[in-house]
Amino acid sequence: MKNFHIEYPDEGLREALIDKINNLTKPKGSLGVLEDLALQIGLIQQTLSPTLSHPHNVLFAADHGIVEEGVSKSPKEITWQQLSNFLHGGAGVNFLCRQHGFKLVLVDSGVDYDLPYEKGIINCSVGRGTHSFLKGPAMSMEEMELCLERGAKITDMIHADGCNVVSFGEMGIGNTSPSSVWMHLLTGISLEQCVGAGSGLDSEGIRHKYNVLKQSVDHYAGDGSAKDIIAWFGGYEMVMAIGGMLRAAELRMIILVDGFIMTNCILAASKLHPEVLSYAIFGHQGDETGHKLVLDAMKVRPLLNLGLRLGEGTGAICAYPIVVSSVNMMNEMDNFAHASITKYF
Amino acid sequence: MKNFHIEYPDEGLREALIDKINNLTKPKGSLGVLEDLALQIGLIQQTLSPTLSHPHNVLFAADHGIVEEGVSKSPKEITWQQLSNFLHGGAGVNFLCRQHGFKLVLVDSGVDYDLPYEKGIINCSVGRGTHSFLKGPAMSMEEMELCLERGAKITDMIHADGCNVVSFGEMGIGNTSPSSVWMHLLTGISLEQCVGAGSGLDSEGIRHKYNVLKQSVDHYAGDGSAKDIIAWFGGYEMVMAIGGMLRAAELRMIILVDGFIMTNCILAASKLHPEVLSYAIFGHQGDETGHKLVLDAMKVRPLLNLGLRLGEGTGAICAYPIVVSSVNMMNEMDNFAHASITKYF
Repeated sequence: MKNFHIEYPDEGLREALIDKINNLTKPKGSLGVLEDLALQIGLIQQTLSPTLSHPHNVLFAADHGIVEEGVSKSPKEITWQQLSNFLHGGAGVNFLCRQHGFKLVLVDSGVDYDLPYEKGIINCSVGRGTHSFLKGPAMSMEEMELCLERGAKITDMIHADGCNVVSFGEMGIGNTSPSSVWMHLLTGISLEQCVGAGSGLDSEGIRHKYNVLKQSVDHYAGDGSAKDIIAWFGGYEMVMAIGGMLRAAELRMIILVDGFIMTNCILAASKLHPEVLSYAIFGHQGDETGHKLVLDAMKVRPLLNLGLRLGEGTGAICAYPIVVSSVNMMNEMDNFAHASITKYF
Repeated sequence: MKNFHIEYPDEGLREALIDKINNLTKPKGSLGVLEDLALQIGLIQQTLSPTLSHPHNVLFAADHGIVEEGVSKSPKEITWQQLSNFLHGGAGVNFLCRQHGFKLVLVDSGVDYDLPYEKGIINCSVGRGTHSFLKGPAMSMEEMELCLERGAKITDMIHADGCNVVSFGEMGIGNTSPSSVWMHLLTGISLEQCVGAGSGLDSEGIRHKYNVLKQSVDHYAGDGSAKDIIAWFGGYEMVMAIGGMLRAAELRMIILVDGFIMTNCILAASKLHPEVLSYAIFGHQGDETGHKLVLDAMKVRPLLNLGLRLGEGTGAICAYPIVVSSVNMMNEMDNFAHASITKYF
């Protein structure tokens, strides 16, 4: 089993960070969330003058056996078709990466298609999609380990490129289903509250999806540990994201968390290593039923709420300018004494 | 009286815009607010391929007679000291303007200080601060007209520079007080719900502020028209912002609305010309008591909610990347047919 040695950021710098923030030329607290982010990032990087360098969006893609049970409105072929769209630069994640200076890394975690690796997709495939967890485990424990390792290696790769802030995204038709089951089993929130419309199911479709997931949970015969739940109900791209996140925290990188799927990935990651949450900035609360509930369960508040439900990392990347602002605040704002302004707090 | 001829955007292009948005490579509606913005901007600019050019943040500054009554935690001198800070680039609005490519325009609308106009502050001063509206009208009707005209001229100036998207900000110690009274009298929401902490009053301070404003409203002896209320309780920088906004709408520019003060300015502007709201994008909902209520009264929802309460245009500028994303979506995203993706809606 891959070991991760993640530490909570040292708290020694907290007072000095708060003091610097409170002496910037503004009423105390008046830059709200920017001040919270500056404190978090200062602690992660152990500096009063934090920097963000070489942001990457790592997009893991895979197919899901559970799609056979009719839980998704979108056909399975969309997974590889969208990967091709990402390669050509025409998808949602592409214009956002360009706008905010993110390098996009495309990873095949287990798509059921002959992908053109020579065009730049990284081959980390552990299989041609998971099994349907209605009938048994989605993947073996060995496959889960492989996913964690390979996800961690991708993080090593971008870290070596100078990256200290990473968003993880996904493409995998059907992956709200494994996410909902993880959420249900890892938080104890009722399955009904964890299941939503995905890419656009109507109420009848949602009822069918719920029934399939309920049956799957009822048939679960594992040991109930976080690892076992992750493997039994997981997706390859999702477990690879967990590996990527845990390694990012180990390397003291900032993790930008995207929508419903990625929120459940960091939830699962935190069940293995709770320290990972200290490195996470939550980008976006989407409309998928349950997203607010799982965020609340982790006691975190995302930066944006724009009604996005596209995945791919789009919600995390949209939130990035706010993270940049928090760092700019620390490096560019003047303080009261230097600017000769009456300190009114 | 300055006349503004503002028209609602022509609706003829609506169906074509919706059709284009729905054929981009994403589940229908999955880019949420970005899709709403793209539709609004497409209608304003009457094009399927909108552009944003030369964003400006116009910051109007003035002093307020009502500060004599002890309604603000911050001393009056902060107004000119912060203007000096803006000139030197060390304030909150400066790093945000640099980050998002905004040109910052500083306007003296009526600050009680000898400002260094030669350093780049534009002299539009109509006086050395307003009168205390506890004792009578804050400004004369002639001063109000001057403010509207001069605000409109500033918009003409930036429009001539190629600007088609403008945020308005303010600096004026005490200006949550006139804002709260405008909000109360122009929406009918109880004064108590309109009054908040401003730059940091405690509960006793808020009670005193409320009492001063209540007395002021009780003593009001005008004709109750929107114009009269605007003049009686207004601030020079706030009325100048109204003039700037109305002219921007007349020129079919996009107006980015900042926090509590600017929200009440566009509320007041909409009482003169309701069409102005079609050109407005609301950037940020702050923590100031009443901000959510006045937004609800106009039936609008801001893009961000980051707990900012700094003013200066900061909330509007922080939201700008989201507006840029909506335009990039229209110009850079591929459609289903061209990308050879199965259209699943």
